[in-house]
Amino acid sequence: MEKIYIIGIGLIGGSFARDLRRLYPKAQIFGIDTTPEHIAEAIKIGLIDAEATITSIEAADLVVLSIPVDIAVKVLPEVLDHIGDQTLVMDMGSTKASICAGVATHEKRRNFLACHPIAGTEFSGPMAAIEGLYIGKTNIICEVEKTSFKLQEKALHLFTSIGMRIRYMDPVSHDKHIAYVSHLSHISAFMLGKTVINKEKNERDIFDMAGSGFASTVRLAKSNPTTWTSIFKQNKENILETLDEYITNLAHFKELMQEDDFNGVYQEMENTNHIKEILKGIE
Amino acid sequence: MEKIYIIGIGLIGGSFARDLRRLYPKAQIFGIDTTPEHIAEAIKIGLIDAEATITSIEAADLVVLSIPVDIAVKVLPEVLDHIGDQTLVMDMGSTKASICAGVATHEKRRNFLACHPIAGTEFSGPMAAIEGLYIGKTNIICEVEKTSFKLQEKALHLFTSIGMRIRYMDPVSHDKHIAYVSHLSHISAFMLGKTVINKEKNERDIFDMAGSGFASTVRLAKSNPTTWTSIFKQNKENILETLDEYITNLAHFKELMQEDDFNGVYQEMENTNHIKEILKGIE
Repeated sequence: MEKIYIIGIGLIGGSFARDLRRLYPKAQIFGIDTTPEHIAEAIKIGLIDAEATITSIEAADLVVLSIPVDIAVKVLPEVLDHIGDQTLVMDMGSTKASICAGVATHEKRRNFLACHPIAGTEFSGPMAAIEGLYIGKTNIICEVEKTSFKLQEKALHLFTSIGMRIRYMDPVSHDKHIAYVSHLSHISAFMLGKTVINKEKNERDIFDMAGSGFASTVRLAKSNPTTWTSIFKQNKENILETLDEYITNLAHFKELMQEDDFNGVYQEMENTNHIKEILKGIE
Repeated sequence: MEKIYIIGIGLIGGSFARDLRRLYPKAQIFGIDTTPEHIAEAIKIGLIDAEATITSIEAADLVVLSIPVDIAVKVLPEVLDHIGDQTLVMDMGSTKASICAGVATHEKRRNFLACHPIAGTEFSGPMAAIEGLYIGKTNIICEVEKTSFKLQEKALHLFTSIGMRIRYMDPVSHDKHIAYVSHLSHISAFMLGKTVINKEKNERDIFDMAGSGFASTVRLAKSNPTTWTSIFKQNKENILETLDEYITNLAHFKELMQEDDFNGVYQEMENTNHIKEILKGIE
């Protein structure tokens, strides 16, 4: 691994760069980003060695695409147009169906591996990059059979060296399930934040009453709106389905309370309590 | 402080007992609890010295009421019936209006201080008790003027020694605002958990896809259903109002997505992003 290009040098790409730097200390890492400040910051803190452009990636051993998913869908074919025969290209996006569909017939399809590492924080930009973010995390790989054997092997070696767990999945299933276990949480948190801020906007010291429970539930409302608008756009139909079910469940809970059916309220919570066992190992 | 009685020796009462033990190492701490296993556990791990009954509290210096709020409303008058003139009684409940109303005309009203320490975890029972849970946390005191000066002073000294910050508030405002910054978060988390579990019940390995974001947002769904049914019962009207607004906000977000108004979706998130500044100091 001599030449690595990271397209989009924020939290996700930047944290990955830190792992790559550790694994391949002699490799040169280049950054491509539409925000000049991100490039400057990333060089300053050592995430990348220098800026590059997409036209210079022919000699790349590895190209990592870590930009908002709707832009990634447009940029990926262009990236594949410019790479050499031995280049491995991987994306890190939170939706997988449209990015896979967009390059299905590209002549360099076998150079691409569709990935979704389940890792991140609510922060963004190169300064948010964290050493070790991916250690012990799950990496979901889609359509692995469409990537050449040699490059599959190269990628797998890389992920294993970082310490990631691998899961294989088809992109349509990925997008359906990830809407439940990731995307919906973000909407739930953003709207919780909105509800409380709207109510309390003239009484800021009310937030003195908030404890760690509120902080935890609303944490994802700090997330980057650009990243998430892009994800919601790409995964619209699945997310609308989860949102429908979530609203129905909330409305049902409200009805139980209105009817003073507190046995029902108790049961709703009791039935969900086994999330304890489910969450073990995630936190 | 020689004799302390904790009624309800779970997470809240048990953690408080640990602080009291540190501050008053010579005091005897008694536990009163309707669950015999809780008493046995609490003695075993040193939270309390012995079991007691409500009829034996006349000589108490301090009685702490840390049981579900709807039961506390019924038990508090009985507690006040049995105490001596110098006894300080405080409750720790998450709702304040009905407990204050319930003892408004009690002849021992001045022995009672209505408190709500904003502290806790999603766990429950004596084994969940934590040393230092209350350090640096906010304690909301309601109707302080209705407590005798001497006992106000005693309580204040205790809270300050523990390291709590004090806020004064009327009970009706307390219940209104706490519905937003605490109670709604619990419903939001429980229904998120329900939505995901219902969808994925036949595909348990889907939870391999869940990351720390989901875990954080759904964390409160591990909370004790008895505690929370009781709170929802006591604060029904305020919570229904918050729930209405939350559902309206979610439905609006859904509409924006349905109409492909992703500028609107972006704005919704952008407008809520300053929760970052609000949360500073809470987490």
